[in-house]
Amino acid sequence: MRDDLTHTADAPSVVDLRSDTVTRPTEAMYARMRTAPLGDDGLDADPTARALEETAAAMLGKAAGLFVPSCTMGNLLAILAQVQRSEQILLEAQAHMLNTERGAATLTGAFLYGVAGTDGAMDLDRLEDALSPNASPLRTAMIALETSHNAAGGTVLPPAHMAAVANLARARGIPVHLDGARLFNAATHLGVAPADLAAHVDTVSLCLSKGLSAPVGAVLAGDGPVIAAARRLRKMIGGTQRQVGIMAAAGLEAITVMGARLAEDHDRARQLSEGLNALRPRLSATMPQTNIVQVDLGRTGRDSARWITDLDALGIRTRPLGGQRLRLVTHRHIAAADIDRAVAAFRTCLDAA
Amino acid sequence: MRDDLTHTADAPSVVDLRSDTVTRPTEAMYARMRTAPLGDDGLDADPTARALEETAAAMLGKAAGLFVPSCTMGNLLAILAQVQRSEQILLEAQAHMLNTERGAATLTGAFLYGVAGTDGAMDLDRLEDALSPNASPLRTAMIALETSHNAAGGTVLPPAHMAAVANLARARGIPVHLDGARLFNAATHLGVAPADLAAHVDTVSLCLSKGLSAPVGAVLAGDGPVIAAARRLRKMIGGTQRQVGIMAAAGLEAITVMGARLAEDHDRARQLSEGLNALRPRLSATMPQTNIVQVDLGRTGRDSARWITDLDALGIRTRPLGGQRLRLVTHRHIAAADIDRAVAAFRTCLDAA
Amino acid sequence: MRDDLTHTADAPSVVDLRSDTVTRPTEAMYARMRTAPLGDDGLDADPTARALEETAAAMLGKAAGLFVPSCTMGNLLAILAQVQRSEQILLEAQAHMLNTERGAATLTGAFLYGVAGTDGAMDLDRLEDALSPNASPLRTAMIALETSHNAAGGTVLPPAHMAAVANLARARGIPVHLDGARLFNAATHLGVAPADLAAHVDTVSLCLSKGLSAPVGAVLAGDGPVIAAARRLRKMIGGTQRQVGIMAAAGLEAITVMGARLAEDHDRARQLSEGLNALRPRLSATMPQTNIVQVDLGRTGRDSARWITDLDALGIRTRPLGGQRLRLVTHRHIAAADIDRAVAAFRTCLDAA
Amino acid sequence: MRDDLTHTADAPSVVDLRSDTVTRPTEAMYARMRTAPLGDDGLDADPTARALEETAAAMLGKAAGLFVPSCTMGNLLAILAQVQRSEQILLEAQAHMLNTERGAATLTGAFLYGVAGTDGAMDLDRLEDALSPNASPLRTAMIALETSHNAAGGTVLPPAHMAAVANLARARGIPVHLDGARLFNAATHLGVAPADLAAHVDTVSLCLSKGLSAPVGAVLAGDGPVIAAARRLRKMIGGTQRQVGIMAAAGLEAITVMGARLAEDHDRARQLSEGLNALRPRLSATMPQTNIVQVDLGRTGRDSARWITDLDALGIRTRPLGGQRLRLVTHRHIAAADIDRAVAAFRTCLDAA
Repeated sequence: MRDDLTHTADAPSVVDLRSDTVTRPTEAMYARMRTAPLGDDGLDADPTARALEETAAAMLGKAAGLFVPSCTMGNLLAILAQVQRSEQILLEAQAHMLNTERGAATLTGAFLYGVAGTDGAMDLDRLEDALSPNASPLRTAMIALETSHNAAGGTVLPPAHMAAVANLARARGIPVHLDGARLFNAATHLGVAPADLAAHVDTVSLCLSKGLSAPVGAVLAGDGPVIAAARRLRKMIGGTQRQVGIMAAAGLEAITVMGARLAEDHDRARQLSEGLNALRPRLSATMPQTNIVQVDLGRTGRDSARWITDLDALGIRTRPLGGQRLRLVTHRHIAAADIDRAVAAFRTCLDAA
Repeated sequence: MRDDLTHTADAPSVVDLRSDTVTRPTEAMYARMRTAPLGDDGLDADPTARALEETAAAMLGKAAGLFVPSCTMGNLLAILAQVQRSEQILLEAQAHMLNTERGAATLTGAFLYGVAGTDGAMDLDRLEDALSPNASPLRTAMIALETSHNAAGGTVLPPAHMAAVANLARARGIPVHLDGARLFNAATHLGVAPADLAAHVDTVSLCLSKGLSAPVGAVLAGDGPVIAAARRLRKMIGGTQRQVGIMAAAGLEAITVMGARLAEDHDRARQLSEGLNALRPRLSATMPQTNIVQVDLGRTGRDSARWITDLDALGIRTRPLGGQRLRLVTHRHIAAADIDRAVAAFRTCLDAA
Repeated sequence: MRDDLTHTADAPSVVDLRSDTVTRPTEAMYARMRTAPLGDDGLDADPTARALEETAAAMLGKAAGLFVPSCTMGNLLAILAQVQRSEQILLEAQAHMLNTERGAATLTGAFLYGVAGTDGAMDLDRLEDALSPNASPLRTAMIALETSHNAAGGTVLPPAHMAAVANLARARGIPVHLDGARLFNAATHLGVAPADLAAHVDTVSLCLSKGLSAPVGAVLAGDGPVIAAARRLRKMIGGTQRQVGIMAAAGLEAITVMGARLAEDHDRARQLSEGLNALRPRLSATMPQTNIVQVDLGRTGRDSARWITDLDALGIRTRPLGGQRLRLVTHRHIAAADIDRAVAAFRTCLDAA
Repeated sequence: MRDDLTHTADAPSVVDLRSDTVTRPTEAMYARMRTAPLGDDGLDADPTARALEETAAAMLGKAAGLFVPSCTMGNLLAILAQVQRSEQILLEAQAHMLNTERGAATLTGAFLYGVAGTDGAMDLDRLEDALSPNASPLRTAMIALETSHNAAGGTVLPPAHMAAVANLARARGIPVHLDGARLFNAATHLGVAPADLAAHVDTVSLCLSKGLSAPVGAVLAGDGPVIAAARRLRKMIGGTQRQVGIMAAAGLEAITVMGARLAEDHDRARQLSEGLNALRPRLSATMPQTNIVQVDLGRTGRDSARWITDLDALGIRTRPLGGQRLRLVTHRHIAAADIDRAVAAFRTCLDAA
């Protein structure tokens, strides 16, 4: 059964598979928001924001945390705090930070260099080449990882890969940042604690408003000096907010309570993938590790824009991955029956062709 | 009587004159936050955020608005959307954007040039000099105003000054931005609508979390293309948030209801100034136009750090303006009795010397 | 026979195949430098610099030219004059501007995105993908080409490829820049005039101090407004020099006289490649289109650093391309006998293994 | 008698007082340029450039030097090598680096903050205020001085002032940079060695193509690591040139021979000032310490543009300082008779009014 959808602008009949960012706050979040102690986070700290920062840092195994308006800002501050002008960052060529968030780099003076990889994991030989002293006129000041990896289809980096990257980095004194927008999904898939994964990196950003369902915000965690620097920089770019404890209260609920239910989203994604693959040979869906399914439309004779329109007419919302693929994401508002309905809609569209 | 202080971390006995940013949400704001329709503002818009943007734009007489996490980000986006790398911005030499927010400029590639002024208003002859073609190797791409003007003591720009600056700017095709962090205070003082002041400028940022008491956020307003550009740029720097309608709901209450009570804050500030000036000749307080009082400590034999400590011991919180002055700000949580208590504390400190 | 080497610090017995940048001025250049009319190029123009700019622009079929200290600065100014902060540039993934010159991008706020290619030519399908509206959050403001292409081994872009890229760009209103560090080599190979190649692009930078043998400098050419903007920007970054006509005089000799002899360098490069390939199977050299030969050392059991040392001991100077390849470049100071000597040195090293 | 003007584009009858940058190379410079040993300064160094760098560094009392295309680039590299993004530089409000060269700052991400001063020397109290921890959200990473000070009229900083600034800076671990475009003029005025002045600072840029008469170039000097960083950065912005020893040869002549004659330029400037002041009360000229005279036209009833045109018709070239003043600069091509002629031209213009 779908979770409470009070306050939703959507009609109840829509199955929204566009992103897990559409998740609404839970009732428990609203209750926490109503009673959270507040201060002035631009002056001498908001107590609820500090509670969230400390709790999140502890869950990630880091000394300090910083509540930020979005994971994009968390990643941006990780760069600003650790990478100077005319230094470079190495990251997988399809990384969200390199592609969707590339604009941030243009404000930092850092150079982003994509290392080709597989399933979101950089090829380690290519990474080592890129780290060699003659490979670039710029000093490498950060290596960035992403898990689960959005563009690769919600794939989870093997812990051994994270450890190998960390070894290469530490041998050269280079910090590793983790874009953990969906870190809890990765940890859920692996059956480990988020801190077990974050142990391989120096800084990590964690989004609270995807599967974890908080309305807004993210946390950047790391050691004390880096987070102190990020706190100053957050103010500089306008990310510091006054009585932000209201939002932090929802974030506390998100990280302490909501992680436990992400396995359901993963189950739904597998259900969706299996349902779509049963419609083969004309459709092909990736078998998900987490909550993202990519659907190859290449043999259907219709491009992604046409599919999106046709599915939308049947109450199924989806997003394109280029011209020949769709991206489907499961989340708290997607029940098993919604998956059945989505698969049926795909079948209807195929039959109508 | 002081406003409701539910959820406040402070002890009730504290009179907090540090800033109007310490104001807590009203009960009506909490009620709106609980029931606001929500969407995904990073995907296809949050309906409450859009309602706030439209309402604020209309109140400011502009075509479009953008809800942003803070007024600092509003000012930053106004620059990013209108000023290119290696262009310059002219603004009063003590402007908040030039001093407190100067870090933002370092990310934009814009050059900020301070024009000397009086009471927050640029000297118009100097402004014209700075605009002359040979005065700078850089093209002037923005003139920025601030009203009420923080560092000048909450002074309000005369509308004739705003018009004169606008004339100089328009004759040269240069947009004018208004840092309207406390625009409603300025309008209250002048007895005009905020739109009457904003009519002189092309873009305006309005803070919702100062005297207007919203927990967080600001609105940037301007014409359609500039705001559309700012919306894209907001995402780039991590200022776009998902179910941000919760915060926008409080902002709607702030701009539609809370402006009417700012006159009270101004009354309190005058009461405070008169009370302190009655302690002369050793203290000297500015006679406020709005809600900020600056106190000159030069003849007391103690610097601002010492005064802050002494007043704090008596339950009065204040902030320094350099080594010889204090800044006191009135707001919704400061009642007439709090002013009496603050003046008494100053007297006690003077007597104890 | 080798050209005059007066004023050379090297011992006469060295065969320097590291780069064509080592070429010394000719006697005719010295004569022109001695008698060139001079002015103040930072004030109201140096007449010889203007003569060079006009001559070079005419040879490249462009309206205007700008004399700059180096081709790197020419490329940087082409970006600064045409690409704004937070816009992107598409170029082949191994392009000199993306790899060796990537630091420049970190100062401009432009994002450089590498498109995979073959022999220095971008894959046109991938280029078109990268140009699609949803491929990037950033507007594409420039496409950059390079011919001959350094990292690809001095390969020359087919004119049809240049035309195809130009068509894609013009349909979208995007300027095309040509990194023409070795444009005259490309034109020589194709048997066309440099202007025939530059006709496909909007701006072009041409290095004067490689095969053309001027001591320093490059020319950036394009339409009037772009070059006027580049002239202002050149001053901003310190590239404007006073009595620079002395250097421009050598540049005039370079572009009007020295292009004719580049075919000799290409002959020598073929001679070198054939000589090295005759030493197979253990060595493998690329068959050059212009004056660059890449040598694969993979089967020799020694890495490039070892080879460079061993060849140096025999008076042959070379440079590495990563760990397993060498780059050899022919130029005015390399005669047929020097090639024989270089091949003999390779053979000696192979025999000594 | 005027120095040799071979290769001059100007008619012989012109007295060019616009700037000392118009000076042509001497015969001795041409002779050195013809015979200078050359290398590839982008590869493994040009021997004449290294000789100039070492000689200049020794004369400035620094460990290392870097030959750069212009003093503007020297100042820019001093920033890039020592100041990170979002750090600030304090310098006198009329400094050349703040005004004419402000564009450079827009590329570095450094914030330039002008401290009000007198005769080119910052007010030390204001400097100390600007250095106080609460005065700015940005860390101060450089203090920059300028001597002789261009906009202040060629004034020379008292060595005691330089020492006082150095003390303030060193107590805070902040490097001091000296824009020494006309450092040799300052040293000449004070009768000290350039190194005596440079001893107060960490880095210094010295222009070779003003009074010292080299055709182009400047030297940046400082300690080894800073200059090594500047060398890498020079390549990044396109300031590295190949056979640059030709220009360095002229620079060697400039710093070792030409400094001795600057006293003549200062004598001419005094002669000029006295001549013009004898035309009072309608004209007022500053009494120069070095080779720059500022002329106040306020009581002549004509603005600077009109004066420039009228003087030009009489063969006297000058430049404006805003609308009411002219700037006149003496140099090697200005003989005593030229001063007489210039004064006569001023008198003619006054009489014609």
